[in-house]
Amino acid sequence: MKKLSSNKVFGGEHAQYSHYSDANKCEMTFAIFLPPIALGKGKEAQRVPVLYWLSGLTCNDQNFMQKAGAFRAAAELGIAIVSPDTSPRGEDVPDDPDSAYDFGLGAGFYLNATQAPWSTHFNMYDYILNELLPGVQQSFFVNKNSAISGQSMGGHGALIIGLKNPDVFTSISAFSPICNPVNCAWGQKAFTHYLGDDQQTWLQYDACHLLQNASKHIPILIDQGTDDNFLEDQLQPNNLIKVAQMSDYHLTLNMRSGYDHSYFFISSFIDEHLYFHATRLFAGE
Amino acid sequence: MKKLSSNKVFGGEHAQYSHYSDANKCEMTFAIFLPPIALGKGKEAQRVPVLYWLSGLTCNDQNFMQKAGAFRAAAELGIAIVSPDTSPRGEDVPDDPDSAYDFGLGAGFYLNATQAPWSTHFNMYDYILNELLPGVQQSFFVNKNSAISGQSMGGHGALIIGLKNPDVFTSISAFSPICNPVNCAWGQKAFTHYLGDDQQTWLQYDACHLLQNASKHIPILIDQGTDDNFLEDQLQPNNLIKVAQMSDYHLTLNMRSGYDHSYFFISSFIDEHLYFHATRLFAGE
Repeated sequence: MKKLSSNKVFGGEHAQYSHYSDANKCEMTFAIFLPPIALGKGKEAQRVPVLYWLSGLTCNDQNFMQKAGAFRAAAELGIAIVSPDTSPRGEDVPDDPDSAYDFGLGAGFYLNATQAPWSTHFNMYDYILNELLPGVQQSFFVNKNSAISGQSMGGHGALIIGLKNPDVFTSISAFSPICNPVNCAWGQKAFTHYLGDDQQTWLQYDACHLLQNASKHIPILIDQGTDDNFLEDQLQPNNLIKVAQMSDYHLTLNMRSGYDHSYFFISSFIDEHLYFHATRLFAGE
Repeated sequence: MKKLSSNKVFGGEHAQYSHYSDANKCEMTFAIFLPPIALGKGKEAQRVPVLYWLSGLTCNDQNFMQKAGAFRAAAELGIAIVSPDTSPRGEDVPDDPDSAYDFGLGAGFYLNATQAPWSTHFNMYDYILNELLPGVQQSFFVNKNSAISGQSMGGHGALIIGLKNPDVFTSISAFSPICNPVNCAWGQKAFTHYLGDDQQTWLQYDACHLLQNASKHIPILIDQGTDDNFLEDQLQPNNLIKVAQMSDYHLTLNMRSGYDHSYFFISSFIDEHLYFHATRLFAGE
């Protein structure tokens, strides 16, 4: 791991690292926030739990770190935050031929691609679960308690990775997630290219399908703004709510009047998400 | 005034506006945060005081609004925040011939230029004091209680505009301000071009000179990181402290161990600045 940058913030540290990813066959960048207690400021350092944050279309490792306003609460609670990039990057990595914002670079959709030319590099699911998590646990003063969150495409990522790995993550939260990608334009475009035409193979990355078949129910918190331009066509939280009711999966969906798809919305409620995860991350300690 | 954008945040509103500036002879953009109480959410609206935030080199109206994490405290306290752009903009506005970051566009230094070709457009001092303040007081549900703050070049701006107008502003604060521009490379370059070679004319925009000659002492709070790359060469808070001691001007300078020149630093202490201003903005109500 190469350390690219470091900033002191709220008594803790924000830093960027890069490292080679076998899953994505390229150098990947991620950012981490370590709260003061993990740095041993003022007393002996303690291992802290980690919240993984997955960002949305067009984002990289920095959007959340610079705009969410999460560090005050994370520093107080003693929670580390890790924010990976949203796709593989580099000269060898193919992009959407039209450089569209919703596919290719910045749009990895947190899955393992099976179709050429995407399958060489676009394996964000394996990267997050099998490289980033163990790498963070090895390299930083953290413990194994992990939660996952994200926004929009990253909310989809948090839901699918969390639902598929309920023994790895204590809890899932999301802002404005793509809840039913097999049923919206963003998801259909990405899944067709990454996974091919057989829509049966898409279901393993669809939150509605995974929730319906979940054997273990870990807590889920979702916040969604009512003035979000993408609400009806792309995000479709009502589809997830319907499945949750049918499956007796208790999840909390807060519809927030007047809020949009921006980081202004995320910053308004990120503290509540941190408190939500904290009760699970510190349970039984 | 044209409304360019609007986002709900912490129950209040962040919005961008543009309007023609007579002082700068161009269209100017600014951003405003209005706390819930100024919008009348839940009860009758109340006029709120305003904190003016001046940003640093290369910034525009959005840096503070997106990265400072100020809205939680501002919403609770009931303080509006106004963040103007850092210079005139537009095709007619001249820039540094080398497009350097420290002069021309994005580097107005909050003064009135006297030298061609800058004097036509670069009149940020008049713009802030005589157009933005009255315009905001006319157009939004605010009262006349105003405070001023900023970072780096904007910290210089807050100090000089506040010190020159102690009856307009209740209080001044700054992060990492340029404290003695006549004595550092950034200031000397800008003042030579904007004001000419006669260094006597520079003193009206130098915080050390103004503090030394201040007839009315309004409260000043400064935060400065010890790991700031610009501390010794450009910012020089010790020069301001020396003048304050000689002049018996009580100001607070917090040297913050390990912090740098970034918004990670600002976000860590912006709440303290808001509380500092609140005690003055709400005094006597």
